[in-house]
Amino acid sequence: MSAENVDNPPVYYEQLDDIEDDFEQVDLEILRIQDKMTRDLYAKRDKIISKIPNFWSLVFEQAPSEIDEFIQPIDASVIVSALKNLSVERFELPNGHPRSILIKFDFSDNEYFEKTTLEKKFWWRHAKDGWEGFVSEPIEIKWKPGKDLTNGLLDLAKKIYEDDKSGKTEEKTPAKKELVKKLEDTSLDTVSFFNFFGFRGRFITAEESAAASRVADEKRKARKEGKEIEEKMEEDEEEDDGEYEFEIFPNGDDVAVAIAEDLYPEAIRYFRDSEELAALSDADFEDDDEEMGEGDGDDQPPQKRKA
Amino acid sequence: MSAENVDNPPVYYEQLDDIEDDFEQVDLEILRIQDKMTRDLYAKRDKIISKIPNFWSLVFEQAPSEIDEFIQPIDASVIVSALKNLSVERFELPNGHPRSILIKFDFSDNEYFEKTTLEKKFWWRHAKDGWEGFVSEPIEIKWKPGKDLTNGLLDLAKKIYEDDKSGKTEEKTPAKKELVKKLEDTSLDTVSFFNFFGFRGRFITAEESAAASRVADEKRKARKEGKEIEEKMEEDEEEDDGEYEFEIFPNGDDVAVAIAEDLYPEAIRYFRDSEELAALSDADFEDDDEEMGEGDGDDQPPQKRKA
Repeated sequence: MSAENVDNPPVYYEQLDDIEDDFEQVDLEILRIQDKMTRDLYAKRDKIISKIPNFWSLVFEQAPSEIDEFIQPIDASVIVSALKNLSVERFELPNGHPRSILIKFDFSDNEYFEKTTLEKKFWWRHAKDGWEGFVSEPIEIKWKPGKDLTNGLLDLAKKIYEDDKSGKTEEKTPAKKELVKKLEDTSLDTVSFFNFFGFRGRFITAEESAAASRVADEKRKARKEGKEIEEKMEEDEEEDDGEYEFEIFPNGDDVAVAIAEDLYPEAIRYFRDSEELAALSDADFEDDDEEMGEGDGDDQPPQKRKA
Repeated sequence: MSAENVDNPPVYYEQLDDIEDDFEQVDLEILRIQDKMTRDLYAKRDKIISKIPNFWSLVFEQAPSEIDEFIQPIDASVIVSALKNLSVERFELPNGHPRSILIKFDFSDNEYFEKTTLEKKFWWRHAKDGWEGFVSEPIEIKWKPGKDLTNGLLDLAKKIYEDDKSGKTEEKTPAKKELVKKLEDTSLDTVSFFNFFGFRGRFITAEESAAASRVADEKRKARKEGKEIEEKMEEDEEEDDGEYEFEIFPNGDDVAVAIAEDLYPEAIRYFRDSEELAALSDADFEDDDEEMGEGDGDDQPPQKRKA
């Protein structure tokens, strides 16, 4: 929080921190309640949706810009032809962190890879410098020969992650060197959406996160009990700048949130938008002398139902 | 829902309607719980914020695009110099509709109008054609002579609303004729943000809404009891197209939602962003030989704290 670094931070900063922390605790509780209240409903929805052909490809066609901007034309063709199911789960609930999410994609066989289920987990983790956010592991996709949409980036990200897990975080492994070189020749603005499966975020183990989280909990408890808290944030400890050197899809966490909090819960609305749009285009291409049924066929936006 | 108007709507449409209705009931319950859990916190936050000069003008400087795109430079100057407080309340709770919101702006005296509190209510209403959404009433602003930022639009919107309330909805009153003429010469893309206070939405009285809501409730109850529901939606009844002829700020409902669900709850974050940006610009303008303190002064985005 660089604004705090200037000389003499105003006294209200601490109060703002405290109240934000209070709100965050409420948000987490709301997420727990919401998860409990909607689990059965989502299961029921899945059943209905499974009977509708192309439901998820139609949903993705109307995906909000936070997701859509990362879907290249070739990705869209794979999604349209092969995405059979999508699901989102707050997989650490009821006992773990309510923000952690699992996103599952079911693909049928296609030009690029065989029938597969890609499961990408995003863990909500704490770091000892106060940072909180998503971390994840690169997921392998078994590309058909010569059909790697990520041009080798995903495999390298996966390899590097395995290296780091085996303790080589400080080591410049061959995979790291190769990835850095590849990234120099790649614009991350136009890479395949399938790089999303390579997102990793900061390297924070479950243990490190649990320790950092405990420190935060103790601080919170002391504050609630009205104790003076001596700010023992290690001032000279290097803050991680939040950049991940070997990231092949830097917006992976934002995309995950957009899927979990928008695309997935609002899927029926996106599906309807997609169908309406298709109906309108059909009407446009119909012969003029053909009966148009009840369809009004003009370009009005879909009826507003809720905010 | 125009997609339902095409011949032979697929059977799953009704099931999708039902499940969406189930989700909506949960969303409403969550809003009730959230309101209860956060009321005291917001009061506590208000107290802290009130000690910070220019808090709300700094928040508006970082407003999300859904709001910012409607703020013209002259509006921004009024907000920066005169907006003293902003509050949002789900004013129909605990017993009324959880979506209804009251947005209150406190302004100090400024070039355009005197010290005032503008209270804009958005009621969540139901129509008998199945539509749900926000309706509101135009709010008067007492402009200083020659200083009407809305160029007379707001006064006319208010007058027309009063006419409609007195039963003249079908009548082409002088105010209506004048507004239509004025709107012909006005681009709604560039009108003042203060037209927001003129938003009205569809003309649905509390009684009409309550009746429509009762019908929906009965249908829901019958469905829950497993009864066959004969779809007696009056097919030949004209559906309102959702357009409001005398609207001077058509996106008023969307802006209200953006304020209530983003700007207001996330105000501290926007405030911090604004302060950081100011600190960075200050650093840019500082003499090179001056001590920069701890500030790193580079262009990194603020540290990510939550999704």
